[in-house]
Amino acid sequence: MESIKDKVAIIGVGCTRFGENFEMTYGDMIVDAVFEAYEDACIDPKQIEAAYLSTAFPELQAAQGRSGMSLSEPLSLSHIPITRIGNYCASGSDAIRNASMAIASGLYDIILVVGVEKLRDLSPRESLVSQAINTGHPLITKGLTAPGIFALFANRYFYKYKVDRTCLAKVAVKNHFNGSLNPKSFLRNKIKEEDVLNAPFVADPLGLMDCTPITDGAAAVILTKRELARNFNKNFVLIKGTSLCVTGGNTLLFQKNNDFTGFQSTIEAARTAYEQAGIRNPKEEIDVAEVHDCFTITEILNYEDLLFCAKGDGWRMVHEGVTGLNGELPINPSGGLKTNGHPVGATGVRQIYEIVKQLQEKAGARQVKNARIGLTHTLGGPGGVAAVTILGIGK
Amino acid sequence: MESIKDKVAIIGVGCTRFGENFEMTYGDMIVDAVFEAYEDACIDPKQIEAAYLSTAFPELQAAQGRSGMSLSEPLSLSHIPITRIGNYCASGSDAIRNASMAIASGLYDIILVVGVEKLRDLSPRESLVSQAINTGHPLITKGLTAPGIFALFANRYFYKYKVDRTCLAKVAVKNHFNGSLNPKSFLRNKIKEEDVLNAPFVADPLGLMDCTPITDGAAAVILTKRELARNFNKNFVLIKGTSLCVTGGNTLLFQKNNDFTGFQSTIEAARTAYEQAGIRNPKEEIDVAEVHDCFTITEILNYEDLLFCAKGDGWRMVHEGVTGLNGELPINPSGGLKTNGHPVGATGVRQIYEIVKQLQEKAGARQVKNARIGLTHTLGGPGGVAAVTILGIGK
Repeated sequence: MESIKDKVAIIGVGCTRFGENFEMTYGDMIVDAVFEAYEDACIDPKQIEAAYLSTAFPELQAAQGRSGMSLSEPLSLSHIPITRIGNYCASGSDAIRNASMAIASGLYDIILVVGVEKLRDLSPRESLVSQAINTGHPLITKGLTAPGIFALFANRYFYKYKVDRTCLAKVAVKNHFNGSLNPKSFLRNKIKEEDVLNAPFVADPLGLMDCTPITDGAAAVILTKRELARNFNKNFVLIKGTSLCVTGGNTLLFQKNNDFTGFQSTIEAARTAYEQAGIRNPKEEIDVAEVHDCFTITEILNYEDLLFCAKGDGWRMVHEGVTGLNGELPINPSGGLKTNGHPVGATGVRQIYEIVKQLQEKAGARQVKNARIGLTHTLGGPGGVAAVTILGIGK
Repeated sequence: MESIKDKVAIIGVGCTRFGENFEMTYGDMIVDAVFEAYEDACIDPKQIEAAYLSTAFPELQAAQGRSGMSLSEPLSLSHIPITRIGNYCASGSDAIRNASMAIASGLYDIILVVGVEKLRDLSPRESLVSQAINTGHPLITKGLTAPGIFALFANRYFYKYKVDRTCLAKVAVKNHFNGSLNPKSFLRNKIKEEDVLNAPFVADPLGLMDCTPITDGAAAVILTKRELARNFNKNFVLIKGTSLCVTGGNTLLFQKNNDFTGFQSTIEAARTAYEQAGIRNPKEEIDVAEVHDCFTITEILNYEDLLFCAKGDGWRMVHEGVTGLNGELPINPSGGLKTNGHPVGATGVRQIYEIVKQLQEKAGARQVKNARIGLTHTLGGPGGVAAVTILGIGK
């Protein structure tokens, strides 16, 4: 088995503002993100040889995103192969992973990857949560929705490590601070710990401000093989590792080895990506990361699953400011899902956008210092699908 | 740009009976197809390093097929990457294409691809057609459903080449004859031309027996790199070419260059696949093919788009028996979509199953003679997405 390390380069990225993009259609958002990426890569659209579209829930968006046609039409990209991937919250990361393998196979030299999802135009009756409840699954109708599931993890974590909601509040405060510096973030207000602690409960112990909002958004990435990267963008970024791990289906939560304080999918995806990238000490070697903070507790569990700290020490990292913008290992400098929201198919691609900007030192007010190796992580399913990508500065 | 030719081998295939599989769940069908493929490849499930799941319409099947978890659960395939692809009727072909590139990239040695869809459990109100009509698209509500669109092509074809419904009837008779010999086919009754001509109209000139039925089904393919194939199965099959072409979105039908007698997506996908496979004279070099006969007229247009004959001569091929089971270029020896039906995500994988069996001379009563190079073709969207795969006997 060969490694993907350093074979594939990112030469351009683009991203819409995330939020309530009522003034933009699904196709408008694609155009917005992709033309920013074209410009960033100094590329003529005619040079794109293949593409990937990530959209997770076409049925919530008048069937947009059911096939590659939803990408070809707004971009007038005709007569090329366009694969459409939907893989829950890991859709965007998995699209980039497959595009990377397509480049590494030698079949295509230049590939466009776009993640896009439009979820704010829906009435509450049509929303993602309603759709889940309407499946009539007995556990979901009893409250085992996404907040319900992650609340179980939070309660178990509190019990096992003798901590309380303060650590969750600190995650929300940190990510809102970062988001306030990100012009493309949905929420840009700074908050205080008491705002989080006093917010109404969604699923005890998770309050409203422990949850990510649902938003609209699109992001785009242009990939090429390493040898060609410099022709387009001297400031290119290399893919060091890209992995996906699926651990199970609906019975996942009830598997014997689930201790409700971490996700096996993240642990395995990280192990594979670190191995590909040759990373032995993630805490020392990773300089910045975008991780899947669908709920504040998830970010803390991610620290542990991604080996940024020992098991049970995740809460300490945020208490001690290690993961703040000026800490040793800044996490979610973009504001994360917490302030950007979670347009499901777009999130993984937006994370890559953020890490590329950080590595290129183009992240403006939210720039972290001396970032040479970055990581992205998505988790979906809930918990059954995880993806990790590791990026490094090109040479 | 490198070619994929002869880098990837198929070492095992499996397929459920297609039809009204009320007694099997979505997961049961996966198990049925995949364990046949395991046995065919003489492989231990633990050797599978990555997988692809093709399902086009999860929202019609209680969300089954939204992510790789829907494959991992029934198979207890845990801790591997599973990408889920949905790309209209080309979903299965595109999953095999992406799996082939993943093998060619060197990242994985053994990959499982599964296509599955369960569409017969739905009430008419929930059906695929109802869902389309319920989008409220003004053209669809006026009758521009799949039969309505392909009827436009049939009428134009009749007008341009001065032929009538007889050629369509001959396609249906041929495919029903083939299907009668295929134990896994849904429809197994032989029919006569007058049965087709006297059937009630669905969309003039297409009658009930010009249309493919909707069915349940699953099919599986196991891929490895050429160097390893012989260790598993001495009778392996090689991928000579695999392509996908997306030509546009909803406005496709109204593009200036659409003459309503062919599909640019098929033409371009075929051109790419032939180039990869080094095929210059498809009519002479292709020995057997499974093509996308969603309607009888589509099969005739496919003959022309795939360069099996000159433009306008497709109807002659079926009139002259060229594409019959004992003809020079047998098409749809399985019975095609016409008798197997069209469980959307499964179809492209079932076609590969059929061509592999034909090349291995394991197709039983429907075996064609001296087949060394075979082709599969799917078309979706309608018409905006096409995929072509070319297979050859391994050496």
